[in-house]
Amino acid sequence: MTIWITGANGFIGRYLTRELAQRGSAVHGLGHGALDEPERRRLGMGHWLNGEVDSTNLGALAVHTGLPTVLFHLAGGSSVGASIAQPYEDFSRTVATSARLLEWLRTSAPECHLVVVSSAAVYGAGSAERMTESAATNPVSPYGQHKLMIEQLCRSYATTFGLQSTIVRLFSVYGANLRKQLLWDLCTRLSEGAGVLKLGGTGQEQRDWTDVRDVARLLACIGDKGQDQPVGVINGGSGVATSVADIAISIVSSWGGKIPIEFSGVTRPGDPFSLVADTGVLNALSFEWQIAVRAGISDYVAWFKEQIR
Amino acid sequence: MTIWITGANGFIGRYLTRELAQRGSAVHGLGHGALDEPERRRLGMGHWLNGEVDSTNLGALAVHTGLPTVLFHLAGGSSVGASIAQPYEDFSRTVATSARLLEWLRTSAPECHLVVVSSAAVYGAGSAERMTESAATNPVSPYGQHKLMIEQLCRSYATTFGLQSTIVRLFSVYGANLRKQLLWDLCTRLSEGAGVLKLGGTGQEQRDWTDVRDVARLLACIGDKGQDQPVGVINGGSGVATSVADIAISIVSSWGGKIPIEFSGVTRPGDPFSLVADTGVLNALSFEWQIAVRAGISDYVAWFKEQIR
Repeated sequence: MTIWITGANGFIGRYLTRELAQRGSAVHGLGHGALDEPERRRLGMGHWLNGEVDSTNLGALAVHTGLPTVLFHLAGGSSVGASIAQPYEDFSRTVATSARLLEWLRTSAPECHLVVVSSAAVYGAGSAERMTESAATNPVSPYGQHKLMIEQLCRSYATTFGLQSTIVRLFSVYGANLRKQLLWDLCTRLSEGAGVLKLGGTGQEQRDWTDVRDVARLLACIGDKGQDQPVGVINGGSGVATSVADIAISIVSSWGGKIPIEFSGVTRPGDPFSLVADTGVLNALSFEWQIAVRAGISDYVAWFKEQIR
Repeated sequence: MTIWITGANGFIGRYLTRELAQRGSAVHGLGHGALDEPERRRLGMGHWLNGEVDSTNLGALAVHTGLPTVLFHLAGGSSVGASIAQPYEDFSRTVATSARLLEWLRTSAPECHLVVVSSAAVYGAGSAERMTESAATNPVSPYGQHKLMIEQLCRSYATTFGLQSTIVRLFSVYGANLRKQLLWDLCTRLSEGAGVLKLGGTGQEQRDWTDVRDVARLLACIGDKGQDQPVGVINGGSGVATSVADIAISIVSSWGGKIPIEFSGVTRPGDPFSLVADTGVLNALSFEWQIAVRAGISDYVAWFKEQIR
């Protein structure tokens, strides 16, 4: 089995590469970011092609590795904030990249099982209910809109050309090596000796936090299963709701000490109140989440402290 | 008032240019296709920039004409069949072009009223009912999917950046100078002395046929109205259903002679059974369609015969 990962050098991509390589698959990657030889070997990645996901590079990778059996498509924008600051850049990374990939698969590797990483951001403003895969999609940020557009492209290629794909909508993925977002921000401030943690929002925002190690196992499991319908959509969330306030408390508690936490009450643009997965579809895969939020956060804090020693 | 038209050198673009110029507006164009000087003057187009719709060319046009007050965005793929043969090319022309345009407007001309030409193809498989603008969108061709994606981009730029736009979903536009599709095909075969006209489909497919001269007036009218909501969506159809069989009969009758017409009964991929506009939203504009299908087709046949003399 030959596996390709676009964006293999990103936060989730590196975990997925290692997970798949440990299972004995030949894993090759394509995307942005330099990867030195020792690191490539440590991850268990065969070939790494540092470049744009386009037909030239996809074709070049195939010369080295043969055509992929399964392709995990992780390349794309990865930040709501960046997508608001530079929407065209996010469009280009997410949508245009996916359009080139789908076209290459159509013409060069139509039998490949494509697993596309999308986001719960496609649901938009969220809901007090857990989101089912068939819930209305109404993204509130360019990031979410562009993820929805790549889902649409997958449907288009399935309807017209029979190209099958599985779309996995990830929720709030965290873990060691994630150097942005809430956990990184809180740890950074704690490391700088903050006397109080002031946060935006109300703290009651509910999210479905998933440890990246579990997410890598989930994606590997989905890649194994194959695909029996033109386009499958799966929520890659645990169904467990944890508020931002509880996350902050966990961080402070893992860090040690008693730092007070305050919330501004002002909601950030593009930031839905609640985004938690309904897990009905995922349950059919008999996949089990193994890392509870508290344990995962404790590991994150330990990693962070290791970094700054 | 400074008006820009992307795709101004296309089938609808040329009619729209002339319509707006005759109303006294300064009209400038950007897009593909050579346009010689006499023809540019005949259309009443000020500047014509023959090139890609990108920030460089948009900026260059602004140096000559100042920023646009209204921009009609007509550039993009224009054929269901071509979008199936070359889906990435259609994506690139339609979606990527629109993404670049929206980004340029956001950064350089956020006050401009954007009128985007979309298509009834976004509705997909169609329905025996007339389509309302709020009907479900479920395109069955890459062409329709890509048009839907540009509508989504408009929504994204409206939601996040307050960029206002009006989306006009055109139905089956025909008229002199359209050198493809059903009318062109039928006239071509008649001119070659066909003894019988054999057509795909059942002949009972219902379409909302609109003469391009009416469509140009409609777009001009929509440009005049301005925009009072973030994204307005208007069906640019007449609400009159005419079957493909009736169109073929009209063509033969206008041509003269008694050629029998036969249908294969086999539906083409991406070809919905019925696509006719509900005109509730359009009625509020007090726009009136002036050219009945029979008269429009008669004019088309006259134009065609003129071409081949």
